[in-house]
Amino acid sequence: MNSPEALARQVMGRIDALAAISETPGILTRRYLTDEHRRANALVADWMSVAGMTSRQDAAGNVIGRYQGADDARPVLMIGSHLDTVVNAGKFDGMLGVLCAIACVQALHGAGRRMSYPIVVVGFADEEGVRFGTTYLGSRAITGRLDPATLDRTDSDGMSFRQALEEFDLDGDRICQAAYGRQDVKAFLELHIEQGPVLENLNRPAGIVTAINGQTRLSVVITGEAGHAGTVPMGLRRDALTAAAEGVLAVEAICAGMEDVVGTVGILRTAPGAINVIPGDVSFTVDVRAREDGARRDAVARVIRAIRAAAENRRVDARVTVFHEATAAPCAPAMMDAIERAIVATGIEPTRLPSGAGHDAAAMAELCDVGMIFLRSEGGISHNPAERTTLDDVTAGIKIMLAVLEELEG
Amino acid sequence: MNSPEALARQVMGRIDALAAISETPGILTRRYLTDEHRRANALVADWMSVAGMTSRQDAAGNVIGRYQGADDARPVLMIGSHLDTVVNAGKFDGMLGVLCAIACVQALHGAGRRMSYPIVVVGFADEEGVRFGTTYLGSRAITGRLDPATLDRTDSDGMSFRQALEEFDLDGDRICQAAYGRQDVKAFLELHIEQGPVLENLNRPAGIVTAINGQTRLSVVITGEAGHAGTVPMGLRRDALTAAAEGVLAVEAICAGMEDVVGTVGILRTAPGAINVIPGDVSFTVDVRAREDGARRDAVARVIRAIRAAAENRRVDARVTVFHEATAAPCAPAMMDAIERAIVATGIEPTRLPSGAGHDAAAMAELCDVGMIFLRSEGGISHNPAERTTLDDVTAGIKIMLAVLEELEG
Repeated sequence: MNSPEALARQVMGRIDALAAISETPGILTRRYLTDEHRRANALVADWMSVAGMTSRQDAAGNVIGRYQGADDARPVLMIGSHLDTVVNAGKFDGMLGVLCAIACVQALHGAGRRMSYPIVVVGFADEEGVRFGTTYLGSRAITGRLDPATLDRTDSDGMSFRQALEEFDLDGDRICQAAYGRQDVKAFLELHIEQGPVLENLNRPAGIVTAINGQTRLSVVITGEAGHAGTVPMGLRRDALTAAAEGVLAVEAICAGMEDVVGTVGILRTAPGAINVIPGDVSFTVDVRAREDGARRDAVARVIRAIRAAAENRRVDARVTVFHEATAAPCAPAMMDAIERAIVATGIEPTRLPSGAGHDAAAMAELCDVGMIFLRSEGGISHNPAERTTLDDVTAGIKIMLAVLEELEG
Repeated sequence: MNSPEALARQVMGRIDALAAISETPGILTRRYLTDEHRRANALVADWMSVAGMTSRQDAAGNVIGRYQGADDARPVLMIGSHLDTVVNAGKFDGMLGVLCAIACVQALHGAGRRMSYPIVVVGFADEEGVRFGTTYLGSRAITGRLDPATLDRTDSDGMSFRQALEEFDLDGDRICQAAYGRQDVKAFLELHIEQGPVLENLNRPAGIVTAINGQTRLSVVITGEAGHAGTVPMGLRRDALTAAAEGVLAVEAICAGMEDVVGTVGILRTAPGAINVIPGDVSFTVDVRAREDGARRDAVARVIRAIRAAAENRRVDARVTVFHEATAAPCAPAMMDAIERAIVATGIEPTRLPSGAGHDAAAMAELCDVGMIFLRSEGGISHNPAERTTLDDVTAGIKIMLAVLEELEG
C-alpha cells in the first residue's frame, strides 16, 4: 500500500486535487495570500496529518509538518518546495516536491519507522513572486532574511504585503517568528522538475543539482527620435529599434561565447508602434544567468558596454538599470554525494547539472546545506499547462528521496 | 482684404476650427464617414460658398466646390487634399491644402476674376485609411478606380465600408457616381506640408514634388520555440527575437546602401513576452519606399532573402507577406515646370524633391496629370500634434498656388 509505485499514484491524484484550486477557472493560478492559498494549505496540512506529522501554518503562511525523530532533539532535516504558482501554470512545478516529501514520510510512518533526526516538510507559500514582484518570500521568512521593507511592496491592486498578511490573519510585524536558527536545521532537501531539456536529452529520469545559477536582470530604455517612415532619409534617422536590435544580438553573442552562461531578451516593446513611423522609444529586458558569479558579472558588464556602444554609434540614448540580482547558490558537496549515491542505488546513471531556474533551495542555502534532486520534464516544458513528468519518474523520485533519508543517517 | 497675407491668416483660423472637430476631446482624430466627417464637410462647404463656389457632397463623401470658368465647358483644374486625419493628428496635414485652394478661389472671386477653365476644389474624404485599413478611398472613387471588394472591408467595430456609407446616407452601389472622366479633368494640383526635414534643412519655404514614392509593406511572422530563459542552453534555442533582430538590421543595411530608398520596421511584437521566457513568436512590419519602382522591388527582394536566410540559420520559421504595394507616381513635367516658375516668381529658390509619404495626388495620377507643392514642416514633424507650418510659409503657399493658376492659363 505504501510502495513507491502506490505512493507515486497517490501523488499524481493529489497533484490534480491541488491544481483544481485556482483563482481562475480552467487554468491554474494560485498566488500568495489568496483564498486559494489558504485552501491549498488546508489540504496539504490534512495530508501531512495522515502521514503521521503534526502540522501548522507559520507566520509567513508556509504550511509545515513535523515528523518526530528517534532523537527528536537533533537538528531537523527540512524537505520541501513551493505551493504557489505562476499565472496559467503547470501543475508539477513546486507541488511535486511537497507531495513527494509527504509521500516519503507516509512510507516511514506506514512502516513504523523513524529516522534518527526529525523531518520537517515545508510547503513554501511564495516562491514565484507573482503577487509582490519579488521571489522566495516564504523561504526567506524561514531563513530569517526577509527584508522588512518588503512588507510595503504592493500587488497590482495596490494592496501591500503587510495588508495581505492581515487579510490572511497574519501579522507583518511577527513574520520574523517564521525563522529557524542555523543550529536547528541539519540540511534542506528539495525535489523539483528540471524545467529544461537536459535530462530528457540524456534519457535519464533524475539528476543531481550542482548549483542554482545566479541571475541579473536589466531593464534597457532606448530613446531615439520618432519620424515618418517615408520622409526621413536613412542617414538622418535616430531609430531606437535598430539600436535595440544590435543590443539583442549582442546579448546572444556574448552569452553564447561563454561557458555556462545564458542570456535572454524576453520582452521588447516599440513606441509609438505604427507601420509608417520610425520607432522613437524602445524598451527591453535582459536576463543573464550563470553558474559562476564572476562569469555572470563579466557577461553583464560586456552586455552593458555593447548596448552603450550601439547607442553612441547611432546617436540615441540608452538607459540601463539593473533591477534584480541574485548570486549563485552552490549545493553542498555532502548533499550532492548523498543524492548521487541514492540515485545510483535506484539503478539510475547519475547526472550532475546546474539549475538555470531559481528555487527555494537558493534562499535556503543562506540558512543551511542544501541539496536538490531534479526529475525529467517532458520536452523541457515549464510554466505552461503542458508541463509534465511521468508516473514512472515520480516513482523514481520517491525512491531516490527515501534513499537520501537513509544516506543522511550516516 | 483678400491679400495673400490676410487669406493666410484666415486659413490659420479655419485650420483651428477644423481641428476642433474631433472624435476624441483634447486630441485630433477624424476618420472617414463619422459624424465629425459630416461636420467638417458642412463647414468646408460653407467656406466654399462664401468663396463663390457651388458646393456638394459626392457619392463617396468627398466635399466638392466648383468655381465657373470663363469658358465653363473646358476640362476642370482640380485642386485639393484630404480632410480625414490619423489618430492624434497634427492639424495641417491635408486640411492646409484644401483651405489654401479655397483661399485662392476666394481671391479670384473677390477680384471678380475667372480663369478660362473651371476650378474644382476637393476635400477628399479618406486619404489616411485609418478606418478601413486602406488608403485613398476618397480620391480613388473620383478616379473611378475603387475596387468594389473594398466595400466589404470592416472597421475595428466590425462595421463594413458599405454599412458605414449607408449610415452616412450614401449608397455603396452608387459610389461609382463619384468618378470623373479623363476628358473632363485638365490636371490635379495639391498643396501639402512636406512631413519631412528636407526643405527646413535647405531653409526654403516651398518645393516642387517630383514623384510620390512607391511603397511596399511586408508583414513578417517568425515562429521559433518559447522556453525558460534559465534552463535552455544557448545552443539549443530557437529564439524568434534574435532572428527578428537580424531582420531589422538587414532592412536598415539594405536600404541605407541604396539611393533614394528608405526602409523601416515600425512595429515589432514579442510573445509570450515575459522577462524569463525565450520569445517563441515575433511579428514585425517592414515599410520600404523608393522613387524608382525597380529599386524598391530590388530592395524588397533583398530584404525578404535576408530574413529567410536568418531564419534558416537559426532553425526558426519565417512567413513573409506583402500586404500593400503602390507603384511610384511621377508628377507631370508640365505641372512641375509651372510650379517651378510660380515659385521663382514668388522670389523663392526652387527645390525639387520626391515625396516619401503617400498623397491623394498618387491616386489622382491614374486620372490626369498631377503636380504638388510642398510647404516646409517645422522639424519635419508629422502625424503628431506638434506638426507646424508658419503663417509666412502659408502666405507663400497661397502666392505660389495663385501663380500656378496663371501659369496654367497658357
